[in-house]
Amino acid sequence: MPICQPHPSNSGGLSAAKLLKASGLNPVVLEARDRVGGRTFTVQNKEAKWVDLGGAYIGPTQNRILRLAKEYGIKTYKVNEQENLVHYVNVSSYPFKGSLPPIWNPITLMDFNNLFRTMDKMGEEIPREAPWRAPHAEEWDKMTMQELFEKLCWTRTARRFATLFVNLIVTAEPHEVSALWLLWYVKQCGGIMRICSTTNGGQERKFVGGANQVTQCMARELGDRVKLQSPVYRIDQTGDVVVVETVDKQTYKAKYVIVATPPALNLKMHFNPELPPLRNQLINRVPMGSVIKCMVYYRENFWRKKGYCGSMVIEEEGAPIGFTLDDTKPDGTVPCIMGFILARKCRKLSSLSKEERLRRICEIYSKVLGTDEALHPVHYEEKNWCEEEYSGGCYTAYFPPGILTQFGRVLREAVGKLYFAGTETATEWSGYMEGPYKLEREQPERSESIKVMCAMGKLQPNQIWQPEPDNDEVLALPFVTTFWERNLPSVDGFLKFLGVSTFLSAAAAAGLVAYKKGIIPRS
Amino acid sequence: MPICQPHPSNSGGLSAAKLLKASGLNPVVLEARDRVGGRTFTVQNKEAKWVDLGGAYIGPTQNRILRLAKEYGIKTYKVNEQENLVHYVNVSSYPFKGSLPPIWNPITLMDFNNLFRTMDKMGEEIPREAPWRAPHAEEWDKMTMQELFEKLCWTRTARRFATLFVNLIVTAEPHEVSALWLLWYVKQCGGIMRICSTTNGGQERKFVGGANQVTQCMARELGDRVKLQSPVYRIDQTGDVVVVETVDKQTYKAKYVIVATPPALNLKMHFNPELPPLRNQLINRVPMGSVIKCMVYYRENFWRKKGYCGSMVIEEEGAPIGFTLDDTKPDGTVPCIMGFILARKCRKLSSLSKEERLRRICEIYSKVLGTDEALHPVHYEEKNWCEEEYSGGCYTAYFPPGILTQFGRVLREAVGKLYFAGTETATEWSGYMEGPYKLEREQPERSESIKVMCAMGKLQPNQIWQPEPDNDEVLALPFVTTFWERNLPSVDGFLKFLGVSTFLSAAAAAGLVAYKKGIIPRS
Repeated sequence: MPICQPHPSNSGGLSAAKLLKASGLNPVVLEARDRVGGRTFTVQNKEAKWVDLGGAYIGPTQNRILRLAKEYGIKTYKVNEQENLVHYVNVSSYPFKGSLPPIWNPITLMDFNNLFRTMDKMGEEIPREAPWRAPHAEEWDKMTMQELFEKLCWTRTARRFATLFVNLIVTAEPHEVSALWLLWYVKQCGGIMRICSTTNGGQERKFVGGANQVTQCMARELGDRVKLQSPVYRIDQTGDVVVVETVDKQTYKAKYVIVATPPALNLKMHFNPELPPLRNQLINRVPMGSVIKCMVYYRENFWRKKGYCGSMVIEEEGAPIGFTLDDTKPDGTVPCIMGFILARKCRKLSSLSKEERLRRICEIYSKVLGTDEALHPVHYEEKNWCEEEYSGGCYTAYFPPGILTQFGRVLREAVGKLYFAGTETATEWSGYMEGPYKLEREQPERSESIKVMCAMGKLQPNQIWQPEPDNDEVLALPFVTTFWERNLPSVDGFLKFLGVSTFLSAAAAAGLVAYKKGIIPRS
Repeated sequence: MPICQPHPSNSGGLSAAKLLKASGLNPVVLEARDRVGGRTFTVQNKEAKWVDLGGAYIGPTQNRILRLAKEYGIKTYKVNEQENLVHYVNVSSYPFKGSLPPIWNPITLMDFNNLFRTMDKMGEEIPREAPWRAPHAEEWDKMTMQELFEKLCWTRTARRFATLFVNLIVTAEPHEVSALWLLWYVKQCGGIMRICSTTNGGQERKFVGGANQVTQCMARELGDRVKLQSPVYRIDQTGDVVVVETVDKQTYKAKYVIVATPPALNLKMHFNPELPPLRNQLINRVPMGSVIKCMVYYRENFWRKKGYCGSMVIEEEGAPIGFTLDDTKPDGTVPCIMGFILARKCRKLSSLSKEERLRRICEIYSKVLGTDEALHPVHYEEKNWCEEEYSGGCYTAYFPPGILTQFGRVLREAVGKLYFAGTETATEWSGYMEGPYKLEREQPERSESIKVMCAMGKLQPNQIWQPEPDNDEVLALPFVTTFWERNLPSVDGFLKFLGVSTFLSAAAAAGLVAYKKGIIPRS
């Protein structure tokens, strides 16, 4: 039994085991929970048919999870974005089409355009696989994202929207996260447009039948190699083999161990010998985000009739939900709106009863969609990921200021016979379901299972490079920027331009007056 | 066996057990390590006689630990501060007397004076027991201390010194910590002067024979109630009694459990039922600081001969050590300098060999003290607290931006029959050896052992208030501020004053000219 994997809190552990088994090795997966899938979690019941209470969305450029799903015959469908999206701000609803709400005020438009353009441009400087090597790494890591927004944004409108953007993509507050880390995070997902778009972006699709199927299929394939309800509490690598003990009082022996948990959950294990100093401190410094995923079910898909697709971008401090998507089944049955309670709101509303949360959610939906129909749900599902001992939170780990440059280097560094995997160790779509798979194919030098196979002589270095072809069903379209998006000045630049042109106009006018008055000789 | 306490990583667990035993209860202490004391750690050997590799310093207003030590006959002695301290900056040494290096440049002086005065003033607004209720709590918690320094300081000199100040008091970087938290931390230690002074401050004294003796005496008193090498990995409170399991495969049953670890180390335990959402996330968000404590031993106490007491304040990026104190024994034997490798430097220098660290330390001591004698140590002791699995770091937990206001409330909140203790839960000298004891006497409503005794009917509410008299040997003197310290303007204020007076002088001069030229009628 050469490999065992303590509680993979997402599919990272299972996919490593699958690859190892295919190479003729004999892996065992130790799963803390009574189910596989970690931060993906599909529930079946009469009211919802099936519902993804955890990770659910996939999109173009996430080719590995799409391939894996195809291998198991799991189909995807597009999240409904036919009708209008709606932006709720200053107590009014503004329908729109596209990825981001349109802006009519020219100053605000310049500000938004400059903000997102600058963020993508800063991202270009940051190496995906080693953000601590970016030319401005130290400077940007000392700043919170909030500080960067204060430097870049001139308008309160842009700063407020930017806060929602951070809340939504990383379930944390801008003042909680390092600017370097957030810019890296956006970059490794393919940039602002890819990360925040539904169509052509990270939220384009869902799996028919639920996201958990991928891990369930892998678990089925692995059979009784997968041990459920087996949280690891001790790893001893003082002897020839690694000894792993679980809370259910089993002992496993292995040549190598892949720990496929979020970094913070390494703390659930007692290590002998102790972890090296930097790893021991890293796992103390990378908290998991805060989110409650809420699905409200209705008798009818009333929003579509009113011309809304179900996507709402909600900017109101009192509203529990910040962002929604239509969660109706692909065949049009089980009308449902999925919404996220994010970061500060999640912490504040955790103490309410489920009923009270539902009441407040329906209230804001009714305001945004302009109809009382939203007040009459027929069913409600929710999952507060902050309460999950074996996830610690969702979607992913975030880096507070100063941590990425000081501790990032040890994130993927093996400790003796322990290797570290999971979506947090990925360098493309890290934080997403795609993360753990990506590594194995495209960056084999960083894949834990491949490192283990090389260490065991099962693979030669020249065998490991396997380029992943683009998925032929889920196509990634480039995001085309307009002339104005590329060339519109920032508010700062515009004001300077105004200043210079005012000066030049004034100078020209003064010159004309001087000329007319004969102060400048007429030649 | 009604109470058990999983790995008290400082004396909090033992002191609770002592109090419970004195009340006729039957506590058991489960200690993770093979020794008691946690972050205090005294080692005896031929070369050093005895040496405190962990917490060591006590001072006035820390009356509870002083009383406890007196009860066991443990004496204190004053850290040597007879001769000059020395401030090393811009590659030069400046001898001085007092708590803080003197400043001669008037602009820098105004800047420093304003910074420290403002910090203490902001601290006055912050309730010790509920910093999240401060009038500006949200605003200050969203800021890192670095941001606050950028707002308050006009000179690079002040900002650089302020960085060393933060490094030294909380072993973290200013950009890593919340301003609200740091201001609270300084306040609950009695303010800037109390926290950073040797004489009349937190570093005034040490225990003759080492700091560990206090916990050792308590452990001796508790006898076989203290179980060493018993790290707790599981706490089950689904039944009538709490079931606690340890890595050495023992099971303990208790009516109540006091968990006396740093908050982050709650993660070492698997809980059934899971912790509530906010506690589950809090323990993920409060990292332990980074420090290596280094003792360099010399044949002779050469610094005293040169007129230096051994305290060095070292500002140089390349120097490993930021601050030192004389660590010679009270009878003048075993000449020694104690120095701290702090925060960013600790992380950077962790990978060096012990020999290389010693070489670099001696090099800087030789520069600062201006003598080659510092290059010839006879012995070296060091302890990198980042490598300790059951501390996670030292001296204490810090709060990154945004965490104190969102999660601080649950720091001391019981979960069923679990109570939380340890220096991080204290509200006066939290982070110090004094922290855990303080609670029991002065703020019984927040003492975990007293809560437990009340829950068990062993104490009536009217019996619990026990005021702690001031220690009659270690006197706390007030810090007297001078007229100038109170009234010197900030650089900002001074410039505004300059601006106004320039304007007034100019206006007066213009008036005079106008008067002389007859533009203003002479009446």
